[in-house]
Amino acid sequence: MKKSSPLFERTAEQIIDLIKSQKLSPGDKLPTEIELVELLQVGRSTIREAIKSLESRNILTIRQGAGTFLSEEKGVSQDPFGLSLIEWSGKLALDLIDVRLVLEPEIAARAAIFATHEQKLKIIEKCSIVEELINNDMTYLNEDMEFHQSIAESSGNQIFEKLVPIIHSSISKNIDATDNKLATNTIISHREISETIMRSDHIGARNAMIAHLHDNRLEIIKQYKLFSNT
Amino acid sequence: MKKSSPLFERTAEQIIDLIKSQKLSPGDKLPTEIELVELLQVGRSTIREAIKSLESRNILTIRQGAGTFLSEEKGVSQDPFGLSLIEWSGKLALDLIDVRLVLEPEIAARAAIFATHEQKLKIIEKCSIVEELINNDMTYLNEDMEFHQSIAESSGNQIFEKLVPIIHSSISKNIDATDNKLATNTIISHREISETIMRSDHIGARNAMIAHLHDNRLEIIKQYKLFSNT
Repeated sequence: MKKSSPLFERTAEQIIDLIKSQKLSPGDKLPTEIELVELLQVGRSTIREAIKSLESRNILTIRQGAGTFLSEEKGVSQDPFGLSLIEWSGKLALDLIDVRLVLEPEIAARAAIFATHEQKLKIIEKCSIVEELINNDMTYLNEDMEFHQSIAESSGNQIFEKLVPIIHSSISKNIDATDNKLATNTIISHREISETIMRSDHIGARNAMIAHLHDNRLEIIKQYKLFSNT
Repeated sequence: MKKSSPLFERTAEQIIDLIKSQKLSPGDKLPTEIELVELLQVGRSTIREAIKSLESRNILTIRQGAGTFLSEEKGVSQDPFGLSLIEWSGKLALDLIDVRLVLEPEIAARAAIFATHEQKLKIIEKCSIVEELINNDMTYLNEDMEFHQSIAESSGNQIFEKLVPIIHSSISKNIDATDNKLATNTIISHREISETIMRSDHIGARNAMIAHLHDNRLEIIKQYKLFSNT
C-alpha cells in the first residue's frame, strides 16, 4: 500500500493486519468503532469509511445493532467476473467450459499427486452423493460442483482452490439441469476421476477429467446448436 | 434467482435486467430511488437494500449527493480470491505462478489463432513499452501486466479475458521489482511471445509463454529459497 493512498485505504489495510494478527475466523466479531479509533489512532469517520470499503470487498459484514464481523465468505465476492452484466449465451457457456478444460485436468493431476488420505475419502464421498442423486432422478448441480471443489481442495495449491468455486458460481446461475444421457456419463466419468486420484495415477486423473469435461462441452454445443451440423 | 430469495435480492436482479435492457455503460447514472420505486413496484427501503447489495458486488457506485452510477469496475471486485486475508509467502507466490503456467500458455495459443490485426498491433505496442521501461531502468510491473492482459483480450474468450487481471492483481501487491537478469530475460521472451502471435504460430506462442513463466518461476524459487539447493 503506497503512502499516497487515501487515509481510509491505509486504515483498511491496518484492519486487515489486525484480523490476521488476532487470528480472527469467519463470523468472529471485530473490535467496536471506538476501540478501533483507539487502536489505529484515526478519526471515527475514517474507521467507518475503511469498514465500508472492506464490506464492499466481502471481507467484513456489518449487522445493524450487532456490530461488524469477519465475513463468512472469506473475501470471495459474488460474481467476481461481473457476468451478471453480460448477456448469457451459448458462446459464454462454451467459453466457461473451455476455461474449465484448461484448468481442471491439471487440478485433477495435482490432486492425484498431493491429496491426503482424508481428502481422497472426501472426494469418494462427494462422488457417491452425486451418484445417488442421479440414480434417484434428483437435481445434482450443487453436489456436482462440490465434487469438483473437493478435488481443487486437494490440489495442494491455494489459488486453484479459490479459483474453482469462482468459475463454478458463474455456471450454476446459468446452466439448467442437463439431460439423462449426460447424467449417466457423469456417474461413469466422476467414478473414473475418483478412482485415478485414489490410486495416485496423475496421468489417468488428467485424462479422466478431460473426458468428463469433453462430454459436457459436447452437450453445451448440442443444447445451444453452436455448430451448424449439430 | 429462486422465488424464495429475499425481496431485495430479486429487486437487485431486476435492476441488473434494467441496466442490460437500457444498455447502460460503466459510469452512467441509474434512475433515482423514486423512479425505481415506480418502475419496480417495491418500497423505497427495498430499493435501498438492493442498491447496497449491488454496490458490495462492485456493480454500482453510490456517490453521496450525486446519485447511483454503474460501476467503472464492471463488477470485477478487488481481491476476489480474498488473498488480503492470507499471509503472503513464497509458497503462495509459487501457487500463483503455477496457476499462470496452466492458464497463460493456452491463452497465448488462442491469441495466436484468434487475435485480430488491431489486437496484434496492441500486443506489439505493449511489448515495446515494457522494453523501453526496462532499457531505461524503470519499474515496469503494471506495463508487464498490461502486455499479458492484451494477450488475454485477444484470446476470443471472455472468461480468460476477465480471469487474467484477477490473477495479476494478486501479484502486483506482493511481488517486488525483480533483478536485472530477469528484466533482460523479460525483453527477450516478451518479444518471442509477440512475434509468434503476430505470425499466428499457436504452438510457438504456447512454448514462448511457458519459457517466459518458467524463468519467472525459477526467479521466485531463488528469491524465496524454496528448495534446499537453490
